[in-house]
Amino acid sequence: MKVIREWKTMLIPYEQAVEELKVKLKAIRNQYRELNEYSPIEFVTGRVKKISSIIEKAERRNIPLDNIEEEMEDIAGLRIMCQFIDDIYEVVNLLYDRSGKDFTVLYEKDYIKNPKESGYKSYHVIIKYPVQTALGTKEILVELQIRTLAMNFWAIIEHSLSYKYKSKIPEDIRERLRNSALAATRLDEEMTEISKEVRNAQLMFEEKSNT
Amino acid sequence: MKVIREWKTMLIPYEQAVEELKVKLKAIRNQYRELNEYSPIEFVTGRVKKISSIIEKAERRNIPLDNIEEEMEDIAGLRIMCQFIDDIYEVVNLLYDRSGKDFTVLYEKDYIKNPKESGYKSYHVIIKYPVQTALGTKEILVELQIRTLAMNFWAIIEHSLSYKYKSKIPEDIRERLRNSALAATRLDEEMTEISKEVRNAQLMFEEKSNT
Amino acid sequence: MKVIREWKTMLIPYEQAVEELKVKLKAIRNQYRELNEYSPIEFVTGRVKKISSIIEKAERRNIPLDNIEEEMEDIAGLRIMCQFIDDIYEVVNLLYDRSGKDFTVLYEKDYIKNPKESGYKSYHVIIKYPVQTALGTKEILVELQIRTLAMNFWAIIEHSLSYKYKSKIPEDIRERLRNSALAATRLDEEMTEISKEVRNAQLMFEEKSNT
Amino acid sequence: MKVIREWKTMLIPYEQAVEELKVKLKAIRNQYRELNEYSPIEFVTGRVKKISSIIEKAERRNIPLDNIEEEMEDIAGLRIMCQFIDDIYEVVNLLYDRSGKDFTVLYEKDYIKNPKESGYKSYHVIIKYPVQTALGTKEILVELQIRTLAMNFWAIIEHSLSYKYKSKIPEDIRERLRNSALAATRLDEEMTEISKEVRNAQLMFEEKSNT
Repeated sequence: MKVIREWKTMLIPYEQAVEELKVKLKAIRNQYRELNEYSPIEFVTGRVKKISSIIEKAERRNIPLDNIEEEMEDIAGLRIMCQFIDDIYEVVNLLYDRSGKDFTVLYEKDYIKNPKESGYKSYHVIIKYPVQTALGTKEILVELQIRTLAMNFWAIIEHSLSYKYKSKIPEDIRERLRNSALAATRLDEEMTEISKEVRNAQLMFEEKSNT
Repeated sequence: MKVIREWKTMLIPYEQAVEELKVKLKAIRNQYRELNEYSPIEFVTGRVKKISSIIEKAERRNIPLDNIEEEMEDIAGLRIMCQFIDDIYEVVNLLYDRSGKDFTVLYEKDYIKNPKESGYKSYHVIIKYPVQTALGTKEILVELQIRTLAMNFWAIIEHSLSYKYKSKIPEDIRERLRNSALAATRLDEEMTEISKEVRNAQLMFEEKSNT
Repeated sequence: MKVIREWKTMLIPYEQAVEELKVKLKAIRNQYRELNEYSPIEFVTGRVKKISSIIEKAERRNIPLDNIEEEMEDIAGLRIMCQFIDDIYEVVNLLYDRSGKDFTVLYEKDYIKNPKESGYKSYHVIIKYPVQTALGTKEILVELQIRTLAMNFWAIIEHSLSYKYKSKIPEDIRERLRNSALAATRLDEEMTEISKEVRNAQLMFEEKSNT
Repeated sequence: MKVIREWKTMLIPYEQAVEELKVKLKAIRNQYRELNEYSPIEFVTGRVKKISSIIEKAERRNIPLDNIEEEMEDIAGLRIMCQFIDDIYEVVNLLYDRSGKDFTVLYEKDYIKNPKESGYKSYHVIIKYPVQTALGTKEILVELQIRTLAMNFWAIIEHSLSYKYKSKIPEDIRERLRNSALAATRLDEEMTEISKEVRNAQLMFEEKSNT
């Protein structure tokens, strides 16, 4: 059994990977904006999973604690938020184009074309990222979740409720969640209709009134 | 006519007010979170209006440049984003409770009960905030916009399109905008249904897995 | 005896005061810089004392835990770093001018004119700062330490050694510390000689090459 | 002649390199601190040279504007501040150990063993850093300046005065600068005497009272 200090030591390169990737992904957005072009990335957040959550997930998934670094892909996680559904696929393409340079794409899970039963939608890309440590290069797994703002909004709510009911959400609440997932999808679809108008507009907007 | 240097000097206390209020409003959220309670504030952003946008708005509204500090209420602006509609009214109450302490509420505009014709929804509270400068205390106007995440999403899109078409948005796009405003409202209403469930859930969630 | 949760609750307004004052003190520096004038403030840092350090100090000073909020003046602390000795007194004047506005100066300790026996130099100003909390306005004590970069450098070293030897630093190391305090003072004095030259230079420098 | 927009486009990867390297160098410090070990790095700052300063330097050094990316090594610059002189050499070793991984060390200039005539001391390491851009990988030059806090203090002052006098500093001020450089060196030497004591102390200090 790991003691707290061992856990903290293990997590240092994960903290570092999240910090570095936050800067790198935000840089993609800034490159577009400095050139007054529409950016498919709206904003980026990141976090390292809490020790208690790692242990809980390892138990739930029967992952031996010695294997978590190879088998748990979301110890380091970043979220890339997009305005429109089409932007998600553009971001995925950017990630694949970059594979083999400062990170390597391992595999993906398209929960947009194939939503989870709960209604969850997001595009997950798992990458291998090299971190420089005092002991040399260490390659770690990082999960990138790419979503629209509406998908993100819904996912936060669903996550809270899963915790409350320990994954046994009562049927009536489950029903309401499915309805709100439909409302979120409806909003994303309405938005897609006007997204081409906005992509050009944003460009002019940035030039005139960016604050 | 003001030269650039005069404008910059004029805007220094506005920059300062935005920075101070960002810290103060974020502190409200942090107080809830540190006590593991649900926070009605999700996140806070702020900006000072660009000089070019101030001039443009002054022309549009026929405000003499000498009067802009008294008549233009959004030179300093903050946005408070909420998860649920009910949270907005809770935040407004918090602001009124605080009036007379470190700032004073002057008036409000409830564009949620009375949306703009375009479909725009938000709750605006205008406050007077004292800033300490080298020349003594200066009281400035600050506009606080309180909205749900869905209202914010829609407002950003609408703002881009208004700029593109210089406030003369073609009727077909205007129609699409109204449809997406309805979809955003629909999402907010579905969410309201499950908001009470979430408020309690969040609490437990924070205790167990906050990262 | 307070439990951890009670301590954390007690410290929330202190965290808030430090955050707010950091923004306010940095704003003083920015005001000078945006006007291309020499700023007596070089940079500002802040911290809330750790719970373990509060308890340790309360024991050492025989302060009952129920009185620490009134008797321990450095639970919330900020450090204002200056380039030159003269800048320190200018900052102190600024603080007194502001007293009665957004904070009140209570008293001061001039460890520059009267260094501690160890060699420690700094100017301490204790203020009362009103913080807005969920329970209303709370006035807390905050210690502002104003120093040159050389004084700060020395103080950090001395602090580390005091901890190592639990305030019983061996005489030979104590001697070396006094020598390095003299070297720090020497540097500050040499710098004072050229400070007037620099104050004007900085101004031109900022206009030409500030990055 | 480049127009502003071309300059801005050229500088984007430099901005990015500075941001990424700031995170990476700060991570070295954090690794030590999280393990409660003494860190040879105290803090890190970075900046991209202003367009006006690049042009001015190109003229002074007779660098054709088309060659600046190859010949001007400090368009992207980072400063690594150390407490003690010995720490500087430890940092240099860390950088060489890392060469060939996420960056490559090209060459160095040891202005500590061989100070400039003005009295300037610092250790410069020039690296080649690969940045991922929309157009693929771009390798750029970055200058890392490694110094003690006292060297940094002096260098800032000297830089201001060089600007004031356009590199023609009057002899009396030049003399004072040399004297203050001696005082700075004296302070660094006194500090070296007690640095070993501190390195162990810091360790215990961090464990007990780090805030």
